[in-house]
Amino acid sequence: MKYTFETTVRGYELDSYGHLNNAVYISYTEQARWEILENAGLLESFLSKKLLLVVTETNIRYMRELKLFDDVKVETQIRFEPPYLIFQHDIINSTDKIKAAKAEVKTLLIDRERIPQDIPEELLAIIN
Amino acid sequence: MKYTFETTVRGYELDSYGHLNNAVYISYTEQARWEILENAGLLESFLSKKLLLVVTETNIRYMRELKLFDDVKVETQIRFEPPYLIFQHDIINSTDKIKAAKAEVKTLLIDRERIPQDIPEELLAIIN
Amino acid sequence: MKYTFETTVRGYELDSYGHLNNAVYISYTEQARWEILENAGLLESFLSKKLLLVVTETNIRYMRELKLFDDVKVETQIRFEPPYLIFQHDIINSTDKIKAAKAEVKTLLIDRERIPQDIPEELLAIIN
Amino acid sequence: MKYTFETTVRGYELDSYGHLNNAVYISYTEQARWEILENAGLLESFLSKKLLLVVTETNIRYMRELKLFDDVKVETQIRFEPPYLIFQHDIINSTDKIKAAKAEVKTLLIDRERIPQDIPEELLAIIN
Repeated sequence: MKYTFETTVRGYELDSYGHLNNAVYISYTEQARWEILENAGLLESFLSKKLLLVVTETNIRYMRELKLFDDVKVETQIRFEPPYLIFQHDIINSTDKIKAAKAEVKTLLIDRERIPQDIPEELLAIIN
Repeated sequence: MKYTFETTVRGYELDSYGHLNNAVYISYTEQARWEILENAGLLESFLSKKLLLVVTETNIRYMRELKLFDDVKVETQIRFEPPYLIFQHDIINSTDKIKAAKAEVKTLLIDRERIPQDIPEELLAIIN
Repeated sequence: MKYTFETTVRGYELDSYGHLNNAVYISYTEQARWEILENAGLLESFLSKKLLLVVTETNIRYMRELKLFDDVKVETQIRFEPPYLIFQHDIINSTDKIKAAKAEVKTLLIDRERIPQDIPEELLAIIN
Repeated sequence: MKYTFETTVRGYELDSYGHLNNAVYISYTEQARWEILENAGLLESFLSKKLLLVVTETNIRYMRELKLFDDVKVETQIRFEPPYLIFQHDIINSTDKIKAAKAEVKTLLIDRERIPQDIPEELLAIIN
Protein backbone atom coordinates (compact mmCIF):
# COMPACT_ATOMS: atom_id res chain seq x y z
CA MET A 1 0.00 0.00 0.00
CA LYS A 2 1.10 3.54 -0.70
CA TYR A 3 0.57 6.67 1.43
CA THR A 4 0.73 10.19 0.06
CA PHE A 5 1.60 13.47 1.77
CA GLU A 6 1.27 16.60 -0.34
CA THR A 7 2.75 20.04 0.11
CA THR A 8 3.98 23.06 -1.81
CA VAL A 9 7.53 24.39 -1.47
CA ARG A 10 7.45 27.52 0.73
CA GLY A 11 9.59 30.64 0.52
CA TYR A 12 11.11 30.15 3.95
CA GLU A 13 12.20 26.61 3.09
CA LEU A 14 14.58 27.79 0.36
CA ASP A 15 18.34 27.99 0.77
CA SER A 16 20.48 30.90 -0.42
CA TYR A 17 20.57 29.34 -3.92
CA GLY A 18 16.78 29.46 -4.17
CA HIS A 19 16.44 25.66 -3.88
CA LEU A 20 14.61 23.65 -1.25
CA ASN A 21 17.12 23.16 1.57
CA ASN A 22 18.43 19.56 1.91
CA ALA A 23 17.26 19.19 5.50
CA VAL A 24 13.67 20.15 4.60
CA TYR A 25 13.36 17.04 2.40
CA ILE A 26 14.05 15.07 5.58
CA SER A 27 11.37 17.08 7.40
CA TYR A 28 8.85 16.32 4.63
CA THR A 29 9.48 12.58 5.11
CA GLU A 30 9.04 13.04 8.87
CA GLN A 31 5.64 14.61 8.35
CA ALA A 32 4.67 11.77 5.97
CA ARG A 33 5.35 9.35 8.84
CA TRP A 34 3.38 11.46 11.38
CA GLU A 35 0.38 11.34 9.02
CA ILE A 36 0.63 7.58 8.58
CA LEU A 37 0.68 7.04 12.36
CA GLU A 38 -2.22 9.46 12.82
CA ASN A 39 -4.28 7.79 10.09
CA ALA A 40 -3.63 4.38 11.64
CA GLY A 41 -5.04 5.80 14.90
CA LEU A 42 -1.75 5.20 16.71
CA LEU A 43 -0.56 8.64 17.80
CA GLU A 44 -2.63 8.81 20.99
CA SER A 45 -1.84 5.28 22.10
CA PHE A 46 1.88 5.86 21.46
CA LEU A 47 1.70 9.00 23.62
CA SER A 48 -0.22 7.35 26.44
CA LYS A 49 2.08 4.29 26.47
CA LYS A 50 5.11 6.56 26.06
CA LEU A 51 6.18 4.69 22.93
CA LEU A 52 8.34 6.38 20.37
CA LEU A 53 9.19 5.49 16.78
CA VAL A 54 12.83 6.59 16.58
CA VAL A 55 14.81 6.94 13.37
CA THR A 56 18.01 4.89 13.49
CA GLU A 57 19.17 5.51 9.91
CA THR A 58 18.27 7.68 6.93
CA ASN A 59 19.61 7.26 3.43
CA ILE A 60 18.51 9.94 0.99
CA ARG A 61 19.46 10.45 -2.66
CA TYR A 62 18.84 13.94 -4.05
CA MET A 63 18.02 13.70 -7.76
CA ARG A 64 16.51 17.04 -8.74
CA GLU A 65 16.26 20.41 -7.06
CA LEU A 66 12.87 21.72 -5.93
CA LYS A 67 11.90 25.39 -6.21
CA LEU A 68 9.46 27.90 -4.73
CA PHE A 69 5.80 26.88 -5.29
CA ASP A 70 6.68 23.46 -6.70
CA ASP A 71 3.90 21.05 -5.78
CA VAL A 72 5.38 18.03 -4.08
CA LYS A 73 4.07 14.55 -3.34
CA VAL A 74 5.76 12.26 -0.82
CA GLU A 75 4.75 8.68 -1.60
CA THR A 76 5.55 6.21 1.15
CA GLN A 77 5.71 2.45 1.33
CA ILE A 78 6.47 0.56 4.53
CA ARG A 79 8.05 -2.83 5.13
CA PHE A 80 8.72 -4.72 8.34
CA GLU A 81 12.16 -6.26 8.82
CA PRO A 82 11.98 -7.19 12.51
CA PRO A 83 12.67 -5.34 14.65
CA TYR A 84 12.86 -2.46 12.13
CA LEU A 85 10.02 -0.69 10.40
CA ILE A 86 11.41 0.71 7.16
CA PHE A 87 9.84 3.64 5.32
CA GLN A 88 10.58 4.07 1.62
CA HIS A 89 9.75 7.65 0.62
CA ASP A 90 9.67 8.96 -2.95
CA ILE A 91 9.62 12.77 -3.15
CA ILE A 92 8.06 13.70 -6.46
CA ASN A 93 7.54 17.01 -8.23
CA SER A 94 3.80 16.76 -8.93
CA THR A 95 3.90 19.06 -11.94
CA ASP A 96 6.40 17.25 -14.15
CA LYS A 97 6.16 13.88 -12.31
CA ILE A 98 9.96 13.83 -11.92
CA LYS A 99 11.34 12.20 -8.81
CA ALA A 100 13.26 14.83 -6.82
CA ALA A 101 14.58 12.50 -4.12
CA LYS A 102 14.19 9.05 -2.63
CA ALA A 103 14.79 8.22 1.00
CA GLU A 104 14.92 5.05 3.05
CA VAL A 105 14.27 5.63 6.74
CA LYS A 106 14.86 2.84 9.27
CA THR A 107 12.87 3.14 12.50
CA LEU A 108 12.56 1.27 15.76
CA LEU A 109 9.68 1.36 18.24
CA ILE A 110 11.06 1.92 21.73
CA ASP A 111 9.78 2.82 25.17
CA ARG A 112 11.14 5.43 27.60
CA GLU A 113 13.94 3.10 28.71
CA ARG A 114 14.92 2.64 25.02
CA ILE A 115 13.78 -0.99 25.03
CA PRO A 116 12.50 -2.08 21.61
CA GLN A 117 8.79 -2.88 21.64
CA ASP A 118 6.57 -5.04 19.44
CA ILE A 119 5.02 -3.23 16.49
CA PRO A 120 1.26 -3.00 17.25
CA GLU A 121 -1.21 -4.93 15.08
CA GLU A 122 -2.78 -1.71 13.75
CA LEU A 123 0.53 -0.65 12.31
CA LEU A 124 1.36 -4.06 10.82
CA ALA A 125 -2.13 -4.05 9.31
CA ILE A 126 -1.45 -0.98 7.19
CA ILE A 127 1.79 -2.43 5.84
CA ASN A 128 0.16 -5.34 4.05
CA MET B 1 21.92 43.37 34.46
CA LYS B 2 22.66 42.28 30.95
CA TYR B 3 22.88 38.71 29.55
CA THR B 4 24.69 37.82 26.36
CA PHE B 5 24.14 34.96 23.93
CA GLU B 6 26.62 34.70 21.09
CA THR B 7 26.37 32.89 17.77
CA THR B 8 27.55 33.05 14.17
CA VAL B 9 25.11 33.19 11.25
CA ARG B 10 24.96 29.75 9.62
CA GLY B 11 24.51 28.82 5.97
CA TYR B 12 21.23 27.01 6.55
CA GLU B 13 19.73 30.04 8.33
CA LEU B 14 19.90 32.23 5.21
CA ASP B 15 16.91 33.03 3.04
CA SER B 16 16.94 32.98 -0.77
CA TYR B 17 18.36 36.54 -0.73
CA GLY B 18 21.39 35.43 1.27
CA HIS B 19 20.23 37.25 4.43
CA LEU B 20 19.43 35.80 7.83
CA ASN B 21 15.77 34.75 7.65
CA ASN B 22 13.42 36.96 9.72
CA ALA B 23 12.12 34.06 11.82
CA VAL B 24 15.64 33.02 12.86
CA TYR B 25 16.11 36.34 14.69
CA ILE B 26 13.13 35.28 16.80
CA SER B 27 14.76 31.89 17.40
CA TYR B 28 17.98 33.58 18.52
CA THR B 29 16.01 35.54 21.15
CA GLU B 30 14.33 32.29 22.24
CA GLN B 31 17.73 30.67 22.83
CA ALA B 32 18.87 33.75 24.78
CA ARG B 33 15.92 33.17 27.13
CA TRP B 34 16.64 29.41 27.48
CA GLU B 35 20.19 30.29 28.54
CA ILE B 36 19.03 32.83 31.08
CA LEU B 37 16.65 30.30 32.68
CA GLU B 38 19.35 27.63 32.65
CA ASN B 39 21.93 29.96 34.21
CA ALA B 40 19.43 30.92 36.91
CA GLY B 41 19.10 27.20 37.68
CA LEU B 42 15.40 27.25 36.81
CA LEU B 43 15.01 24.87 33.88
CA GLU B 44 14.79 21.70 35.95
CA SER B 45 12.41 23.10 38.52
CA PHE B 46 10.16 24.46 35.75
CA LEU B 47 10.10 21.01 34.16
CA SER B 48 9.40 19.18 37.40
CA LYS B 49 6.65 21.63 38.44
CA LYS B 50 5.33 21.66 34.83
CA LEU B 51 5.71 25.42 34.66
CA LEU B 52 6.09 27.12 31.34
CA LEU B 53 7.21 30.62 30.38
CA VAL B 54 4.97 31.36 27.41
CA VAL B 55 5.42 34.24 25.00
CA THR B 56 2.31 36.36 24.73
CA GLU B 57 3.67 39.09 22.48
CA THR B 58 6.76 39.81 20.39
CA ASN B 59 7.62 43.14 18.84
CA ILE B 60 10.72 43.11 16.68
CA ARG B 61 12.29 45.89 14.59
CA TYR B 62 14.68 44.78 11.86
CA MET B 63 17.33 47.45 11.34
CA ARG B 64 20.16 45.82 9.37
CA GLU B 65 20.47 42.54 7.50
CA LEU B 66 22.79 39.84 8.81
CA LYS B 67 24.87 37.66 6.49
CA LEU B 68 26.70 34.33 6.47
CA PHE B 69 29.42 34.12 9.15
CA ASP B 70 28.45 37.41 10.78
CA ASP B 71 29.22 37.15 14.49
CA VAL B 72 26.14 38.06 16.46
CA LYS B 73 25.55 39.03 20.07
CA VAL B 74 22.09 38.98 21.64
CA GLU B 75 22.11 41.26 24.69
CA THR B 76 19.14 40.84 26.96
CA GLN B 77 17.69 42.87 29.77
CA ILE B 78 14.67 41.79 31.79
CA ARG B 79 12.03 43.75 33.62
CA PHE B 80 9.06 42.64 35.68
CA GLU B 81 5.70 44.28 35.03
CA PRO B 82 3.42 41.97 36.99
CA PRO B 83 2.27 39.52 35.89
CA TYR B 84 4.52 39.87 32.84
CA LEU B 85 8.22 39.23 32.55
CA ILE B 86 9.50 41.34 29.67
CA PHE B 87 12.69 40.56 27.78
CA GLN B 88 14.42 43.34 25.86
CA HIS B 89 16.77 41.80 23.30
CA ASP B 90 19.31 43.74 21.23
CA ILE B 91 20.69 41.73 18.32
CA ILE B 92 24.06 43.19 17.46
CA ASN B 93 26.57 42.48 14.69
CA SER B 94 29.70 41.93 16.80
CA THR B 95 32.11 42.91 14.05
CA ASP B 96 30.90 46.43 13.29
CA LYS B 97 28.91 46.87 16.56
CA ILE B 98 25.84 47.87 14.55
CA LYS B 99 22.44 46.88 15.97
CA ALA B 100 20.74 44.53 13.51
CA ALA B 101 17.44 44.25 15.37
CA LYS B 102 15.75 44.94 18.67
CA ALA B 103 12.95 42.85 20.11
CA GLU B 104 10.64 43.14 23.08
CA VAL B 105 9.19 39.82 24.19
CA LYS B 106 6.40 39.66 26.76
CA THR B 107 6.13 36.40 28.69
CA LEU B 108 3.88 34.90 31.33
CA LEU B 109 4.65 32.02 33.69
CA ILE B 110 1.80 29.51 33.59
CA ASP B 111 1.11 25.96 34.72
CA ARG B 112 -0.43 23.15 32.73
CA GLU B 113 -3.95 24.50 33.26
CA ARG B 114 -2.71 27.85 31.87
CA ILE B 115 -3.08 29.54 35.26
CA PRO B 116 -0.54 32.34 35.75
CA GLN B 117 1.98 31.55 38.48
CA ASP B 118 4.18 33.72 40.67
CA ILE B 119 7.64 34.43 39.28
CA PRO B 120 10.12 32.49 41.48
CA GLU B 121 12.58 34.39 43.67
CA GLU B 122 15.59 33.05 41.73
CA LEU B 123 14.27 34.63 38.57
CA LEU B 124 13.37 37.95 40.20
CA ALA B 125 16.86 37.94 41.70
CA ILE B 126 18.58 38.03 38.34
CA ILE B 127 16.46 40.96 37.15
CA ASN B 128 17.75 43.36 39.71
CA MET C 1 -9.86 42.26 0.32
CA LYS C 2 -8.73 39.24 2.28
CA TYR C 3 -6.18 36.58 1.30
CA THR C 4 -6.05 33.14 2.83
CA PHE C 5 -3.15 30.72 3.25
CA GLU C 6 -4.01 27.33 4.69
CA THR C 7 -1.82 24.73 6.32
CA THR C 8 -1.85 21.98 8.93
CA VAL C 9 0.50 22.00 11.92
CA ARG C 10 3.32 19.49 11.28
CA GLY C 11 5.17 17.25 13.72
CA TYR C 12 8.52 18.88 13.07
CA GLU C 13 7.11 22.36 13.77
CA LEU C 14 6.36 21.55 17.42
CA ASP C 15 8.49 22.67 20.33
CA SER C 16 9.45 20.48 23.28
CA TYR C 17 6.09 21.29 24.91
CA GLY C 18 4.18 19.89 21.93
CA HIS C 19 3.00 23.34 20.80
CA LEU C 20 3.66 25.09 17.51
CA ASN C 21 6.99 26.89 17.99
CA ASN C 22 6.67 30.70 18.22
CA ALA C 23 8.96 31.34 15.26
CA VAL C 24 6.90 29.10 12.96
CA TYR C 25 3.91 31.45 13.31
CA ILE C 26 6.19 34.10 11.79
CA SER C 27 7.14 31.71 8.98
CA TYR C 28 3.45 31.06 8.26
CA THR C 29 2.89 34.79 7.79
CA GLU C 30 5.94 34.94 5.52
CA GLN C 31 4.48 32.23 3.29
CA ALA C 32 1.14 34.10 3.22
CA ARG C 33 3.01 37.10 1.79
CA TRP C 34 4.90 34.99 -0.79
CA GLU C 35 1.54 33.66 -2.01
CA ILE C 36 0.04 37.13 -2.27
CA LEU C 37 3.00 38.36 -4.35
CA GLU C 38 2.86 35.24 -6.54
CA ASN C 39 -0.90 35.58 -7.07
CA ALA C 40 -0.46 39.24 -8.03
CA GLY C 41 2.06 38.08 -10.65
CA LEU C 42 4.84 40.06 -9.01
CA LEU C 43 7.44 37.49 -7.98
CA GLU C 44 9.18 37.25 -11.35
CA SER C 45 9.29 40.99 -11.95
CA PHE C 46 10.66 41.56 -8.44
CA LEU C 47 13.39 39.01 -9.15
CA SER C 48 14.31 40.43 -12.54
CA LYS C 49 14.35 44.02 -11.25
CA LYS C 50 16.15 42.85 -8.10
CA LEU C 51 13.46 44.35 -5.91
CA LEU C 52 12.90 43.04 -2.42
CA LEU C 53 10.03 43.46 0.01
CA VAL C 54 11.87 43.62 3.33
CA VAL C 55 10.27 43.35 6.73
CA THR C 56 11.12 46.32 8.93
CA GLU C 57 8.91 45.46 11.89
CA THR C 58 6.78 42.58 13.16
CA ASN C 59 4.36 42.75 16.06
CA ILE C 60 2.73 39.46 16.96
CA ARG C 61 0.33 38.60 19.78
CA TYR C 62 0.06 34.91 20.67
CA MET C 63 -3.45 34.16 21.92
CA ARG C 64 -3.86 30.39 21.82
CA GLU C 65 -1.44 27.52 21.35
CA LEU C 66 -1.63 25.41 18.20
CA LYS C 67 -1.08 21.65 18.24
CA LEU C 68 -0.15 18.80 15.91
CA PHE C 69 -2.61 18.41 13.02
CA ASP C 70 -4.52 21.58 13.85
CA ASP C 71 -5.82 23.06 10.60
CA VAL C 72 -4.75 26.67 10.35
CA LYS C 73 -5.89 29.58 8.22
CA VAL C 74 -3.80 32.74 7.84
CA GLU C 75 -6.12 35.56 6.75
CA THR C 76 -4.31 38.63 5.48
CA GLN C 77 -5.34 42.19 4.81
CA ILE C 78 -2.99 44.79 3.36
CA ARG C 79 -2.89 48.54 3.72
CA PHE C 80 -0.59 51.14 2.21
CA GLU C 81 0.88 53.79 4.51
CA PRO C 82 3.52 55.29 2.22
CA PRO C 83 6.22 54.21 1.99
CA TYR C 84 5.19 51.17 4.03
CA LEU C 85 3.06 48.25 2.94
CA ILE C 86 1.48 46.80 6.07
CA PHE C 87 0.23 43.22 6.30
CA GLN C 88 -2.33 42.35 8.96
CA HIS C 89 -2.33 38.58 9.49
CA ASP C 90 -4.87 36.67 11.57
CA ILE C 91 -3.79 33.12 12.36
CA ILE C 92 -6.93 31.12 13.01
CA ASN C 93 -7.52 27.55 14.15
CA SER C 94 -9.89 26.41 11.38
CA THR C 95 -11.55 23.73 13.48
CA ASP C 96 -12.84 25.80 16.38
CA LYS C 97 -12.54 29.20 14.60
CA ILE C 98 -10.54 30.59 17.50
CA LYS C 99 -7.86 33.14 16.69
CA ALA C 100 -4.46 31.72 17.71
CA ALA C 101 -2.44 34.83 16.92
CA LYS C 102 -2.52 38.16 15.17
CA ALA C 103 0.46 39.81 13.55
CA GLU C 104 1.16 43.18 11.97
CA VAL C 105 4.10 43.13 9.58
CA LYS C 106 5.53 46.37 8.19
CA THR C 107 7.39 46.05 4.90
CA LEU C 108 9.30 48.29 2.54
CA LEU C 109 10.07 47.73 -1.14
CA ILE C 110 13.76 48.32 -1.76
CA ASP C 111 16.32 47.70 -4.48
CA ARG C 112 19.79 46.20 -4.14
CA GLU C 113 21.23 49.48 -2.89
CA ARG C 114 18.48 49.53 -0.20
CA ILE C 115 16.77 52.50 -1.80
CA PRO C 116 13.00 52.48 -1.25
CA GLN C 117 11.05 51.98 -4.47
CA ASP C 118 7.52 52.82 -5.51
CA ILE C 119 4.96 50.09 -4.89
CA PRO C 120 3.94 48.76 -8.34
CA GLU C 121 0.39 49.31 -9.61
CA GLU C 122 -0.38 45.58 -9.61
CA LEU C 123 0.32 45.42 -5.91
CA LEU C 124 -1.64 48.56 -5.07
CA ALA C 125 -4.48 47.10 -7.15
CA ILE C 126 -4.91 44.10 -4.88
CA ILE C 127 -5.02 46.24 -1.77
CA ASN C 128 -8.16 48.04 -2.72
CA MET D 1 43.00 16.03 8.23
CA LYS D 2 40.09 16.62 10.52
CA TYR D 3 37.85 19.71 10.76
CA THR D 4 35.76 20.54 13.78
CA PHE D 5 32.53 22.53 14.08
CA GLU D 6 31.24 23.08 17.60
CA THR D 7 27.80 24.04 18.83
CA THR D 8 25.42 23.61 21.74
CA VAL D 9 21.95 22.12 21.33
CA ARG D 10 19.38 24.93 21.41
CA GLY D 11 15.85 24.95 22.80
CA TYR D 12 14.24 25.65 19.44
CA GLU D 13 16.04 22.68 17.84
CA LEU D 14 14.26 20.13 20.04
CA ASP D 15 11.37 17.99 18.88
CA SER D 16 8.24 17.32 20.94
CA TYR D 17 10.09 14.52 22.76
CA GLY D 18 12.76 16.94 23.97
CA HIS D 19 15.44 15.47 21.69
CA LEU D 20 17.39 17.19 18.94
CA ASN D 21 15.23 16.88 15.82
CA ASN D 22 16.60 14.46 13.19
CA ALA D 23 16.76 17.10 10.46
CA VAL D 24 18.89 19.42 12.61
CA TYR D 25 21.73 16.86 12.67
CA ILE D 26 21.75 17.23 8.87
CA SER D 27 21.85 21.02 9.26
CA TYR D 28 24.82 20.75 11.63
CA THR D 29 26.74 18.78 8.96
CA GLU D 30 25.78 21.44 6.40
CA GLN D 31 27.27 24.16 8.57
CA ALA D 32 30.44 22.05 9.06
CA ARG D 33 30.84 22.05 5.26
CA TRP D 34 30.20 25.82 4.97
CA GLU D 35 32.99 26.42 7.51
CA ILE D 36 35.42 24.15 5.66
CA LEU D 37 34.78 26.01 2.38
CA GLU D 38 35.12 29.36 4.13
CA ASN D 39 38.36 28.36 5.85
CA ALA D 40 39.77 27.16 2.52
CA GLY D 41 39.01 30.63 1.16
CA LEU D 42 36.62 29.20 -1.44
CA LEU D 43 33.24 30.71 -0.65
CA GLU D 44 33.77 33.96 -2.53
CA SER D 45 35.27 32.34 -5.62
CA PHE D 46 32.41 29.80 -5.73
CA LEU D 47 29.93 32.69 -5.58
CA SER D 48 31.67 34.77 -8.24
CA LYS D 49 32.06 31.77 -10.59
CA LYS D 50 28.54 30.62 -9.74
CA LEU D 51 29.80 27.24 -8.62
CA LEU D 52 27.78 25.17 -6.22
CA LEU D 53 28.69 22.13 -4.12
CA VAL D 54 25.45 20.13 -4.27
CA VAL D 55 24.62 17.18 -2.06
CA THR D 56 23.70 14.10 -4.10
CA GLU D 57 23.38 11.63 -1.25
CA THR D 58 23.31 11.60 2.55
CA ASN D 59 23.53 8.53 4.71
CA ILE D 60 23.15 9.17 8.43
CA ARG D 61 23.06 6.74 11.35
CA TYR D 62 21.54 8.06 14.58
CA MET D 63 23.21 6.38 17.55
CA ARG D 64 22.35 8.47 20.60
CA GLU D 65 19.86 11.21 21.24
CA LEU D 66 21.08 14.74 21.96
CA LYS D 67 19.41 17.01 24.50
CA LEU D 68 19.11 20.69 25.38
CA PHE D 69 22.49 22.29 26.18
CA ASP D 70 24.49 19.24 25.12
CA ASP D 71 27.81 20.44 23.72
CA VAL D 72 28.34 18.93 20.30
CA LYS D 73 31.38 18.54 18.08
CA VAL D 74 31.06 17.72 14.38
CA GLU D 75 34.35 16.18 13.21
CA THR D 76 34.71 16.00 9.45
CA GLN D 77 37.05 14.18 7.13
CA ILE D 78 36.96 14.55 3.36
CA ARG D 79 37.94 12.20 0.59
CA PHE D 80 37.91 12.65 -3.18
CA GLU D 81 36.38 9.87 -5.30
CA PRO D 82 36.21 11.64 -8.67
CA PRO D 83 33.95 13.30 -9.48
CA TYR D 84 32.55 13.15 -5.92
CA LEU D 85 33.80 14.91 -2.83
CA ILE D 86 32.71 12.84 0.15
CA PHE D 87 32.35 14.27 3.65
CA GLN D 88 32.48 11.91 6.61
CA HIS D 89 30.93 13.64 9.63
CA ASP D 90 31.03 12.31 13.19
CA ILE D 91 28.60 14.09 15.51
CA ILE D 92 29.92 13.70 19.02
CA ASN D 93 28.54 14.66 22.43
CA SER D 94 31.52 16.62 23.79
CA THR D 95 30.69 15.98 27.42
CA ASP D 96 30.68 12.18 27.50
CA LYS D 97 32.62 11.74 24.21
CA ILE D 98 29.88 9.40 22.92
CA LYS D 99 29.18 9.47 19.19
CA ALA D 100 25.59 10.61 18.65
CA ALA D 101 25.51 10.11 14.87
CA LYS D 102 27.71 9.53 11.86
CA ALA D 103 26.92 10.79 8.39
CA GLU D 104 28.42 10.31 4.95
CA VAL D 105 27.54 13.12 2.53
CA LYS D 106 28.33 12.82 -1.16
CA THR D 107 28.72 16.11 -3.03
CA LEU D 108 29.37 17.23 -6.56
CA LEU D 109 30.70 20.62 -7.73
CA ILE D 110 28.49 21.95 -10.50
CA ASP D 111 27.93 25.19 -12.34
CA ARG D 112 24.63 26.95 -13.09
CA GLU D 113 23.92 24.60 -16.01
CA ARG D 114 24.44 21.66 -13.64
CA ILE D 115 27.64 20.62 -15.40
CA PRO D 116 30.14 18.96 -13.04
CA GLN D 117 33.29 21.04 -12.57
CA ASP D 118 36.82 20.20 -11.51
CA ILE D 119 37.48 20.45 -7.78
CA PRO D 120 39.78 23.47 -7.29
CA GLU D 121 43.34 22.93 -6.06
CA GLU D 122 42.68 24.81 -2.81
CA LEU D 123 39.99 22.31 -1.91
CA LEU D 124 42.02 19.25 -2.88
CA ALA D 125 44.86 20.71 -0.82
CA ILE D 126 42.87 20.57 2.41
CA ILE D 127 41.90 16.94 1.85
CA ASN D 128 45.42 15.58 2.02
